[in-house]
Amino acid sequence: MSQIETIASRKWVYLFEEGNKDMKTLLGGKGANVAEMRAVGLPVPPGFTITTEACNEYYHNERQMLPGLREQTLEALKHVEKLTGKTLGDKTNPLLVSVRSGSPLSMPGMMDTVLNLGLNDDTVEGLATQTGNRWFALDAYRRFISMFGRIVLGVDEEKFSRVLERHKAQTEGKRDTDLSIMQLEDVIASYKRIVYASLNEQEFPQDPLEQLRKAISAVIESWMGKRAVDYRRVHRISDMLGTATNVQAMVFGNLGWDSGTGVCFTRNPSTGERMLYGEYLLNAQGEDVVAGIRTPHPIAELQKELPECYGQLVEITQRLEQHYQDMQDIEFTIERGKLWMLQTRNGKRSGVAAIRIAVEMVAEGVIDQTTAVGRVAPEQLDQLLHPMVDPDAQVTVLTVGLPASPGAASGQISFDPDEAEQLAAEGQAIILLRDETNPDDFHGMVAAQAILTARGGMTSHAAVVARGMGKPCVAGAGALEVNYAQQICTIAGSTTYLRRGDWITLDGSTGRVLLGKAPTIQPQFSEYFTTLMQWADAVRTMGVRANADTPQDAATARKLGAEGIGLCRTEHMFFGEERLPIVREMILAESLAEREVALEKLLPFQEQDFFGIFRVMEGLPVTIRLLDPPLHEFLPSLEELLQSLADLKFTVQRAQNLADMDVVLRQLWEKEKLLKQVHRLREANPMLGHRGCRLSIVFPEIAAMQARAIFQAACKAQSQNIKVLPEIMIPIVSTPEELRLQLDVVRRTATKVFGEQGTSVEYLLGTMIELPRAALVADKIATHADFFSFGTNDLTQTTFGLSRDDSARFLPTYIKEKIFLEDPFQVLDREGVGQLVQMGIERGRSVKPDLKIGICGEHGGEPSSVEFCYQAGMNYVSCSPFRVPIARLAAAQAALAGVKRDT
Amino acid sequence: MSQIETIASRKWVYLFEEGNKDMKTLLGGKGANVAEMRAVGLPVPPGFTITTEACNEYYHNERQMLPGLREQTLEALKHVEKLTGKTLGDKTNPLLVSVRSGSPLSMPGMMDTVLNLGLNDDTVEGLATQTGNRWFALDAYRRFISMFGRIVLGVDEEKFSRVLERHKAQTEGKRDTDLSIMQLEDVIASYKRIVYASLNEQEFPQDPLEQLRKAISAVIESWMGKRAVDYRRVHRISDMLGTATNVQAMVFGNLGWDSGTGVCFTRNPSTGERMLYGEYLLNAQGEDVVAGIRTPHPIAELQKELPECYGQLVEITQRLEQHYQDMQDIEFTIERGKLWMLQTRNGKRSGVAAIRIAVEMVAEGVIDQTTAVGRVAPEQLDQLLHPMVDPDAQVTVLTVGLPASPGAASGQISFDPDEAEQLAAEGQAIILLRDETNPDDFHGMVAAQAILTARGGMTSHAAVVARGMGKPCVAGAGALEVNYAQQICTIAGSTTYLRRGDWITLDGSTGRVLLGKAPTIQPQFSEYFTTLMQWADAVRTMGVRANADTPQDAATARKLGAEGIGLCRTEHMFFGEERLPIVREMILAESLAEREVALEKLLPFQEQDFFGIFRVMEGLPVTIRLLDPPLHEFLPSLEELLQSLADLKFTVQRAQNLADMDVVLRQLWEKEKLLKQVHRLREANPMLGHRGCRLSIVFPEIAAMQARAIFQAACKAQSQNIKVLPEIMIPIVSTPEELRLQLDVVRRTATKVFGEQGTSVEYLLGTMIELPRAALVADKIATHADFFSFGTNDLTQTTFGLSRDDSARFLPTYIKEKIFLEDPFQVLDREGVGQLVQMGIERGRSVKPDLKIGICGEHGGEPSSVEFCYQAGMNYVSCSPFRVPIARLAAAQAALAGVKRDT
Repeated sequence: MSQIETIASRKWVYLFEEGNKDMKTLLGGKGANVAEMRAVGLPVPPGFTITTEACNEYYHNERQMLPGLREQTLEALKHVEKLTGKTLGDKTNPLLVSVRSGSPLSMPGMMDTVLNLGLNDDTVEGLATQTGNRWFALDAYRRFISMFGRIVLGVDEEKFSRVLERHKAQTEGKRDTDLSIMQLEDVIASYKRIVYASLNEQEFPQDPLEQLRKAISAVIESWMGKRAVDYRRVHRISDMLGTATNVQAMVFGNLGWDSGTGVCFTRNPSTGERMLYGEYLLNAQGEDVVAGIRTPHPIAELQKELPECYGQLVEITQRLEQHYQDMQDIEFTIERGKLWMLQTRNGKRSGVAAIRIAVEMVAEGVIDQTTAVGRVAPEQLDQLLHPMVDPDAQVTVLTVGLPASPGAASGQISFDPDEAEQLAAEGQAIILLRDETNPDDFHGMVAAQAILTARGGMTSHAAVVARGMGKPCVAGAGALEVNYAQQICTIAGSTTYLRRGDWITLDGSTGRVLLGKAPTIQPQFSEYFTTLMQWADAVRTMGVRANADTPQDAATARKLGAEGIGLCRTEHMFFGEERLPIVREMILAESLAEREVALEKLLPFQEQDFFGIFRVMEGLPVTIRLLDPPLHEFLPSLEELLQSLADLKFTVQRAQNLADMDVVLRQLWEKEKLLKQVHRLREANPMLGHRGCRLSIVFPEIAAMQARAIFQAACKAQSQNIKVLPEIMIPIVSTPEELRLQLDVVRRTATKVFGEQGTSVEYLLGTMIELPRAALVADKIATHADFFSFGTNDLTQTTFGLSRDDSARFLPTYIKEKIFLEDPFQVLDREGVGQLVQMGIERGRSVKPDLKIGICGEHGGEPSSVEFCYQAGMNYVSCSPFRVPIARLAAAQAALAGVKRDT
Repeated sequence: MSQIETIASRKWVYLFEEGNKDMKTLLGGKGANVAEMRAVGLPVPPGFTITTEACNEYYHNERQMLPGLREQTLEALKHVEKLTGKTLGDKTNPLLVSVRSGSPLSMPGMMDTVLNLGLNDDTVEGLATQTGNRWFALDAYRRFISMFGRIVLGVDEEKFSRVLERHKAQTEGKRDTDLSIMQLEDVIASYKRIVYASLNEQEFPQDPLEQLRKAISAVIESWMGKRAVDYRRVHRISDMLGTATNVQAMVFGNLGWDSGTGVCFTRNPSTGERMLYGEYLLNAQGEDVVAGIRTPHPIAELQKELPECYGQLVEITQRLEQHYQDMQDIEFTIERGKLWMLQTRNGKRSGVAAIRIAVEMVAEGVIDQTTAVGRVAPEQLDQLLHPMVDPDAQVTVLTVGLPASPGAASGQISFDPDEAEQLAAEGQAIILLRDETNPDDFHGMVAAQAILTARGGMTSHAAVVARGMGKPCVAGAGALEVNYAQQICTIAGSTTYLRRGDWITLDGSTGRVLLGKAPTIQPQFSEYFTTLMQWADAVRTMGVRANADTPQDAATARKLGAEGIGLCRTEHMFFGEERLPIVREMILAESLAEREVALEKLLPFQEQDFFGIFRVMEGLPVTIRLLDPPLHEFLPSLEELLQSLADLKFTVQRAQNLADMDVVLRQLWEKEKLLKQVHRLREANPMLGHRGCRLSIVFPEIAAMQARAIFQAACKAQSQNIKVLPEIMIPIVSTPEELRLQLDVVRRTATKVFGEQGTSVEYLLGTMIELPRAALVADKIATHADFFSFGTNDLTQTTFGLSRDDSARFLPTYIKEKIFLEDPFQVLDREGVGQLVQMGIERGRSVKPDLKIGICGEHGGEPSSVEFCYQAGMNYVSCSPFRVPIARLAAAQAALAGVKRDT
């Protein structure tokens, strides 16, 4: 057989009678579900589906129509004609059909539909006779010409609507339905002239078969239309799925007041309540409902208007829900009292609804608990955990940035972290607005209700810290230009600007920046939520911990179900008004002795912090990472210093007398000394610089102080009968020797402290795996470690050679060009970084089979990454407290999916 | 058997009769060679060797003497006593022995030796009788007490020498040999009192067996002495080798004028000339030669003084050279007219000598060509390629930094690259002295004779650029503190300071900074060099290319044997007086159109550069890397800008009139605009930022301009019958998509240019593999590439998560703590980075078996890394022009070693 013959002999067209709900890949969602409804005996207008394979083959074949497709379509059409007793193009009893797209994954509104196909100057009269309603027939014809004109022939819709508007303006009611038959005839004539002019003097196609062929092509073409491609990019849908095309006999909801059309859900999609929920319009076509010209009625009213149909609908929708074992989103049409089902599919629902429906369906015996666990998308839980902007409220959107940390909050703008702290202390609600944030701004972020930055990505400092604190954050709102000097912020493309003290509301779940105080809704944990999470925990095999640096965060985490702390960052304890000066003293120390004096002063602070966390986490493990960032993060910025030096030099010149001058000169001298240190510690690439264990290898006394604080706190807790399980972790390890040396310091300190205290505490020692080399030599590193914790933020940075702080300038282009399908700092890059993670796990366990392994990067709370961690064989994931429920559910779903590597 | 019995039953002691030259690992170099000399019938005093295994077992056994060792030693001693007819401790005919260390690898002078062992108050008289020379016996005894006292008993040597000096001062000649017998007796008595006092009232051990046991322990202990450990660290010798201990019957060169001692080489170790070369002293012990108390005579004079011995020596040394097939370094002693051979080993030699000896030995039929190729250490070639400080000159060392780029040069200090350029243009020899350098200093580095920096490591900007230019560089001379404002530089620990205009000399081969103009010797390529390199090329299978950015560099590279350019960095073409303003124009462009205007202006410069290189490299491939560094490298530094802004603001206040003020305000405005850009482009981690292909993905017009320049230059060259083989390479690729998009731009440009020119040029397209992810997904990347070039500088940075610019602060600690055995930026880290390289090669070739693969990082010119590249299956290495001969030889040696992976 030649290739053409092979193609021609393939089956491109399926009658509805030939399909079922499991054939979505081939027939698309709509085609499969319509076939299924027909199969279970529901009233469905006859029709057929052209497969997704035909679509793919079409693109594969340089957009040539496929051999065999025409023949198979005509045959299927004959079948529909036979079932309906009508014939396409027949002047007296014409068949009209709809041509609709339908891809395997729902892409609502993204592709094209043609209704009323088959009408022409002759059949319109046949339709008039057939229905006994000439007005209806003409109305259908004018709708068809404009729809076909726009979608298939590419005529500017504007031209049609201008004509229609002109005619409507001449009627009393100014509505479509007020047009007279003569006016409709005029409209049709004008429409045909528009097409003729637009198509280079070609008539509107009168041959229904030509109409059908062209409409099918147009639907298939719409798969690669800009709208559809963009949608797929955003929703991560492959171009390779293709769309099916459904050709179906028309039924009409606009044939009088015993006709109508509607959509309904088997449960309330916002709350999940079990009820028939939806709306309908009598004497209307589906597009009227969508267009919003007439206000549809709540579905319950149909019971009064058409009680028989309503009863039938209730019965059918319940059957459908039972059949699909899930909440259904259903489209129907009533033609002269007869109910027709046009579409059913699993209904989209809010997070709240998803949980309630899942839990109630278990109670009803429709599904089992594990199915219920799989029914809620983990990300949907986010809505439940944070206040949200009231979706019904009227709001003014100033600009949209990245949805960096979910939740909503209102406050007055402050550009300065110190001011923010002070105003917050006075009881004001503050939104901290910065170009971008750095660790020096931490106290201002703590004080603020929410954080807004003009720069930085989803994993910028602001975003990470805000998520850690569970505070809303909108990051990288690029339209904002902050002017600290004038304390204002302009918005590109807008004449509005924001001043210090202005009220705004941030919607961290969508990235919206709203003017003024927008009304918000507070989160609440329903009993449905609690039940679902219990079921999730029952199937989950991987642990979930939280990243928490303070007793407050730890308490939140525990409340949200964290089974321990997977990452306690000790550097956050180095900031704070009382501590920073001591930390600087330590950094500026010129000898070991001086440095030890400063460390001695820091010790009680650290000990107190650790004790607080141990108390909150009683009985659960707490993984503490020793100091990680480079020391210069604790010094003022170079720019700041240069500025104050310039100011001081200016002051010197204006000094009134020698005494004044002396004072200023002293200050100058101090600043210059500091400047020298800042210069000395400045790094070209701090991310790759003198940080983590590299610091404590040069200054082992820092690790010793931290270890002492941990062990003293642990001993104290234990003496108060608080069970402590400290796990100490060394950052930025790339060689086994680094780990060995650091752990020696920790072990020696433990022995010393236990000796002093006359007691001892069990503890584990481990390492971060956050550099490619650590993963590559994990077997050698594992000999020294009780556990590994994958720091996938840094591992992503180093594996890609990509600084997350600097990626904002090109990441958008990378997403647009599909170089990255996802931001690798949000979703773990399985292809690259994932290889190193797997290597690290396999090699680590090759020498120590019971090595405890977790992840503590941002990815630990992202569902797809959690799934990967499960598959790779990790013991636990750790994430920000407010993502703990998400991780729990994602881990449960991963366990249900059941693919796990043997390591 | 118990463990102790097992150990006791092992053979720890070998008689010289039981060894041979192939047993170095077990017997050490000295032990094996002495045994070998004995085996071939040369006169060697009898003795035995305690194995290196005994040493290792000793350390393994917590420094306890091994069971069985004592018994085996005593048995071997008996054998020596039998052969010599003397007995240890015998009062009338005492045996004296030496106890010497001897590790498998030569560590000259690093470990301890005890001579004349066996003497005590009784045997000294026996020796006097035996030799008929009481003075000699007493002299031997006093030497023994002080040597044993210092080495074995840990007595401060100073104490002995003070006594000796006092006695010598009383003699006429003030020399040892002038001491009277009575004085010697006094010295011995004093020495014994010193020992008694130092040892807490313990007598000097009189029991020869105790002496022997303690001396053996001391020699083994010296393996872990500080000197030895430091030496091994520097020379990368493993602690695990252990040292052997040789116990040998003493022979005496100081028994009169028919006795003597000497060392000789079978060829001149400086020049390689074939001649007996060395020196001797009559009536002396070996230590006298070393101590330099008497000036030894050239070996030729021995022919007159002891003609028979000389003849025997010539004959024996020639036999030894023939036997070992290499130049020998020989120690001998003549005792009363009888020649004894004490030691032979392959002699150390200069690079020049190594080459000449290897080549001449082939001519003499001693070795074959491939053996000759293996005889020269590749690093030794470095000496030949650069001027060196005359080793015979008297010099004043100011400080020592890192030997960052070899060669020597003198010049006057300049702290400023602009000034350096200007003064150099006026014909002055300049040494550019900077804290550290950056690309903005490039013109000053070009102008300077040599570069000296206070900061930065072996792979700092200064070091890399200097090596690339073949200019001497001393980097990271930490004692220097540069004060630009005052144009001076202080030297820590010294009162000297360096001013602008001062003459200094840099020795880039050793890192020395010398005062004034030190005399230098110019390099010369001998015919021996040419011959050896031809032989090397004949066995070499891997290509050697050079990294060169200018026609000048390319010419040098070609002269030194480069077979193409493996890395032409186009960014160096962006600096330079005429170009930088245009580059800045491009960066500051606010639209594509503006940017294209600037690029259009850059085009002719780039085209001209490429044409120049193509012409020089006629017929050889030229790999051109598209723009790599982040754009802000081409803008002034933030600090510089802030400074000039502060200055301008100051000027504004002093402006005399409105017109003046207006001028200054305009400047201020310009600077502020620039500052804004500098701010905007500033990156937290430029190494991981918006650079390489990430730049050209956002601004494809940059890649298009560069590709156009390359293809236009190639067409022009081809039209002049110059054969061109351009290979275009994309940097910073981490995904296959990046490469595909960039190569599309290049290919489209090629098609356009070839169309315009009516011709076409063959070219290859490839990518850098310099990020871990690129290596991990190399199979996917390879589908788009004709070749891979491993950028192991960046790959090392990202694999370790280590910025080479920032590593200086902790690298010394890392080396000291043995975390890194080598600086991974100098010697490729096989354990970590090497895994990724191998993975990249295997995966790349798995989809494209004939994928061309090379390396273009600094490692491409480092012998051990070159060997790794060969083993990993690379097609070529590429390095700075002046390292090309080193790479050629290293590649040849790797081929001879013959281990190559099948990929």
